[in-house]
Amino acid sequence: MGLAYMGPVMLAVLVLLAILYISYWQTIEAYPTSGGSYTVAHENLGANAGLLAATALMIDYVLNVAVGISAGVGALTSAVPALHPYTLWLCLGILVLVTLINLRGTFEAGLVFAVPTYLFVLCFGGGVVVYGVWQALMAGGDPMPVVPPPAAPAEIGAAVSVWLLLRAFASGCTAMTGVEAVSNGVSAFRDPTVTYAHRTLTAIVVLLGLLLAGIAYLAGAYHTLAMDQSEPGYQSVLSQLSAAVLGRGPLYFVAMSSVLAVLCLSANTSFAGFPRLCRQVARDEYLPRAFAISGRRLVNSVGILWLAGTAAILLVIFDGITDRLIPLFAVGAFLSFTLSQAGMAVHWSRQLSGKDGGGGRLGHRVRLGINATGALATGASLAVILGAKFVEGAWITVLTIPFVLALLKLTKRYYTQIDRQLIDEGPIALDDLTPPIVIVPIREWNRLAERAVRYALRLSSEVIAVHLTRLEGPDGEEDAERLRRRWEHEVERPARAAGLKPPRLVQTPSPYRSIVAPLLKFVLQIRERSPNRAITVVIPALVEAHWWDHLMHTRRAHRLRQTLLRHGGPQLAVVLVPWTLEEPKPEAVIAAEEPRHRARRAAERRREQHAAK
Amino acid sequence: MGLAYMGPVMLAVLVLLAILYISYWQTIEAYPTSGGSYTVAHENLGANAGLLAATALMIDYVLNVAVGISAGVGALTSAVPALHPYTLWLCLGILVLVTLINLRGTFEAGLVFAVPTYLFVLCFGGGVVVYGVWQALMAGGDPMPVVPPPAAPAEIGAAVSVWLLLRAFASGCTAMTGVEAVSNGVSAFRDPTVTYAHRTLTAIVVLLGLLLAGIAYLAGAYHTLAMDQSEPGYQSVLSQLSAAVLGRGPLYFVAMSSVLAVLCLSANTSFAGFPRLCRQVARDEYLPRAFAISGRRLVNSVGILWLAGTAAILLVIFDGITDRLIPLFAVGAFLSFTLSQAGMAVHWSRQLSGKDGGGGRLGHRVRLGINATGALATGASLAVILGAKFVEGAWITVLTIPFVLALLKLTKRYYTQIDRQLIDEGPIALDDLTPPIVIVPIREWNRLAERAVRYALRLSSEVIAVHLTRLEGPDGEEDAERLRRRWEHEVERPARAAGLKPPRLVQTPSPYRSIVAPLLKFVLQIRERSPNRAITVVIPALVEAHWWDHLMHTRRAHRLRQTLLRHGGPQLAVVLVPWTLEEPKPEAVIAAEEPRHRARRAAERRREQHAAK
Repeated sequence: MGLAYMGPVMLAVLVLLAILYISYWQTIEAYPTSGGSYTVAHENLGANAGLLAATALMIDYVLNVAVGISAGVGALTSAVPALHPYTLWLCLGILVLVTLINLRGTFEAGLVFAVPTYLFVLCFGGGVVVYGVWQALMAGGDPMPVVPPPAAPAEIGAAVSVWLLLRAFASGCTAMTGVEAVSNGVSAFRDPTVTYAHRTLTAIVVLLGLLLAGIAYLAGAYHTLAMDQSEPGYQSVLSQLSAAVLGRGPLYFVAMSSVLAVLCLSANTSFAGFPRLCRQVARDEYLPRAFAISGRRLVNSVGILWLAGTAAILLVIFDGITDRLIPLFAVGAFLSFTLSQAGMAVHWSRQLSGKDGGGGRLGHRVRLGINATGALATGASLAVILGAKFVEGAWITVLTIPFVLALLKLTKRYYTQIDRQLIDEGPIALDDLTPPIVIVPIREWNRLAERAVRYALRLSSEVIAVHLTRLEGPDGEEDAERLRRRWEHEVERPARAAGLKPPRLVQTPSPYRSIVAPLLKFVLQIRERSPNRAITVVIPALVEAHWWDHLMHTRRAHRLRQTLLRHGGPQLAVVLVPWTLEEPKPEAVIAAEEPRHRARRAAERRREQHAAK
Repeated sequence: MGLAYMGPVMLAVLVLLAILYISYWQTIEAYPTSGGSYTVAHENLGANAGLLAATALMIDYVLNVAVGISAGVGALTSAVPALHPYTLWLCLGILVLVTLINLRGTFEAGLVFAVPTYLFVLCFGGGVVVYGVWQALMAGGDPMPVVPPPAAPAEIGAAVSVWLLLRAFASGCTAMTGVEAVSNGVSAFRDPTVTYAHRTLTAIVVLLGLLLAGIAYLAGAYHTLAMDQSEPGYQSVLSQLSAAVLGRGPLYFVAMSSVLAVLCLSANTSFAGFPRLCRQVARDEYLPRAFAISGRRLVNSVGILWLAGTAAILLVIFDGITDRLIPLFAVGAFLSFTLSQAGMAVHWSRQLSGKDGGGGRLGHRVRLGINATGALATGASLAVILGAKFVEGAWITVLTIPFVLALLKLTKRYYTQIDRQLIDEGPIALDDLTPPIVIVPIREWNRLAERAVRYALRLSSEVIAVHLTRLEGPDGEEDAERLRRRWEHEVERPARAAGLKPPRLVQTPSPYRSIVAPLLKFVLQIRERSPNRAITVVIPALVEAHWWDHLMHTRRAHRLRQTLLRHGGPQLAVVLVPWTLEEPKPEAVIAAEEPRHRARRAAERRREQHAAK
């Protein structure tokens, strides 16, 4: 029933789309490297507005993944109703697939996702919308559906229709988030980036507008009806339309496959946009540094995994039902639109007050007007969406935003504090450079211990080996005695013969095999005796090469190292003398980094060539 | 219907129980420190038999947890049928609870679990069994049940009864695994350990025998029936008996609570036995070393968590249904019984051939006879159980045993190889002890870098700072230039003024911020130029104190350290110079270990006092 109102609603959506188009055209021009809402709001409205925009966008990217995938699965279960009970599992399966493709690198992702777009435009755009509209017009606006859509249940009254109207509006708006992705990723386009970004923006907006208008017209003409996705027998509006225009033959299934593919693709835009946004925010130190680095395959896996994880949680909470996710979605999108537009308006008014030229002045006034209109329109839409969808789920987004904002701010404070601690003025202090007292904890006299003691002797002439003798067991004392004798024969005597000060062996009782506390105690004793000396602890380390090596050894050496570093005081350093279980292969490590450098260099070369033209 | 056969079956079970009792009495005497199947089979039948016994026991301990808990939940859902749909969740909840209690330490566990035992003996043993048997005898063997058990379904025929007979036999046998736990844990008893262990063994066997006999008699007298736990309306045999004897009033619920408690307690015995067995096996290097150490609270958390994890998997796979777990269970128990008995028989025959005394000779002959009978009886039981339960699930245990055996053997081989690599003969080599070339990777000139360079100068006069310059970004070259100037002002000049050889700054391009490969390359270059020199890399390390610190920093320093240790060759060592974000608190670390030492010392003192008496 609500679809009877689709006409005026769709008109409002189309007007909004046009406003966004012009506004973002200007934004791309003004911010040719990267004109996302975060940058624009940050530069023109201040850091807080930028963070708010970033928060809204991040939430939006996550929701976009969930909504795209769940709508795609909606198309799939419409086409193959037998799959309906597995809605959630299908959503999660597709999410895993998309995530894996993106973790493999952007190049492959581009390839995999280019085909579906063309397929969709051809099959659904051409096959269903154009052909359907033509049919409908030929029939004078009241065509005979090949397969009629399900009849409307009788009880839907007028009150509900107002809600449906607003819901339709908000749902239509969600299609616009792709617009933001373009402006945020300008630098990813080929040079001249602005031209290509403008072209892409135009293509997206025109296609989106035509599709939305076509679908709205067809939905009215064929009297389709929004159904409840959680009920068996669910048919999405696009499925109803496709069936009405094409019948449920092979063509219908091709069209629905293309719908599934393009909705997954729309989810996939987040996998480029979210990590990119996170990188910008992390470079300003509002997110942990791990979001700023890219891994092996030029992708930021932390960002991708974070996106996938939160989207998965949303899908599970909302059972993979699109209609339950939509109310959460539009809030973030329109909040960031509004902030971006307001920021652009401020940008132009600043330019105006700074500039005093003639023609530029008028141009800037027009631009200011456009962006101000955009800000008002998107702000009003935001208010409408908030009012219409608050109880349905928008409150979740409204509550999440301050929470995320607080996390971002805390992160910034954390890094600022560290930076303040680390800043250094003045020359290096070189007054006391006596070699350290070197402590070598040993368990028994073996090659590991021998190498550690030898390394210690390279660093300092004062070497003390510490053996923690066990009290328990009858052979504890025997072990200690045997080690004393070996130490004498195999360390002290050769050292004396070589004219060196022989390293001492200290045996100290360790109740019950604990090693951390007795060693720390020993370090404190040494420091008490010589408060100004540096202390170095040499830890012989078995270096693990395989995952199973990690299972086979206890974490004691690790715990010892961490505790000494954490609690040993500023004068203490830890030396790790490795014992590798496998041959070292440094060349392999270096070679493994080559391919990614090659890929980056190629990208750079391409860009330089364009710049040279 | 199968319960009609309970008489002869129960007789066989009781005879077996008696044989086990006498055999294990002897085992405890012969192995007063720890007479588990692993030790007995290992010492008398060889390492492989010992491992086989250990494997069987480990599997058995895991199954004991699953069976005990699921049977306890069976009692609970019998009493409160509304909980039946949540059988699996209840099982997992109880498992988590028992695990947490055990992780908190053995002392608390002893306290928590002492009460239920008395409760059970009093309520169920006294209230249901003794009172019920008395009632039945008064009624001439055919008592009137207060609440009659559900009627037998008509279709159970004679063929099924044979299976029920065998199943009842195998199920009854599972009650005997407690016997093994006593002999395996002799050393945990107070001194004189053997006396206390004997008393405990007697108490367990007598109680077990009386309960089994009583339940068997009552089950026959009241015509109770084994029901399917996966069906709603399930009533366990014990619940049927309690209702028949006591009615479903308050007394019934008290009795069922005690059944639930004691079954959880029986699951809990594994939490002492499994880690103890694992420790023994790990000390012989057949399990990873982590199983041999005990953590903060005197417990081996690795063993406990492993036990809980595998039990949880079993509960999930078999849906928490006791009857599905039982077939897997008895195989392991009886395999280890048989191996233990056979081992004891060999033990006595060795003693016989070694000894030539008179009276001892006869005593040893009798003991040999008893253990040989035990071995035959348990071996025969094993064959019966295997035959009866193979298809029902025993095949899973049969398949698991060689798999676990192989893992144990591989572990042993791994450690043997390492030990062989590390063994050292002869005195320490002291021919070349020139200080190393020290490399300090620095990102910028801050306090972290300053401290690292100063520490490097303590260790050697040859210090090279490596700065990896970024190529990307317009300010890469600018950064590099600024660092060069600071280096000259704040390091080189002061060093020259102090009469030191000034540390060099090497700037080497690092494509795209990668640090591992360029540094490794640099190390290889240095080594090529001076092949015999030791190389030390000083890494300034931010030391994390809180869990969120780990999130805030990238793993780059970690990766760098691990790669250098793994691939830098035997001449390379890594020095970690710490920068702590929080104040060091060494006293707190030492104090934190005190309570556990105090607990151990108290235990030791107690033992010494006993020994002195």
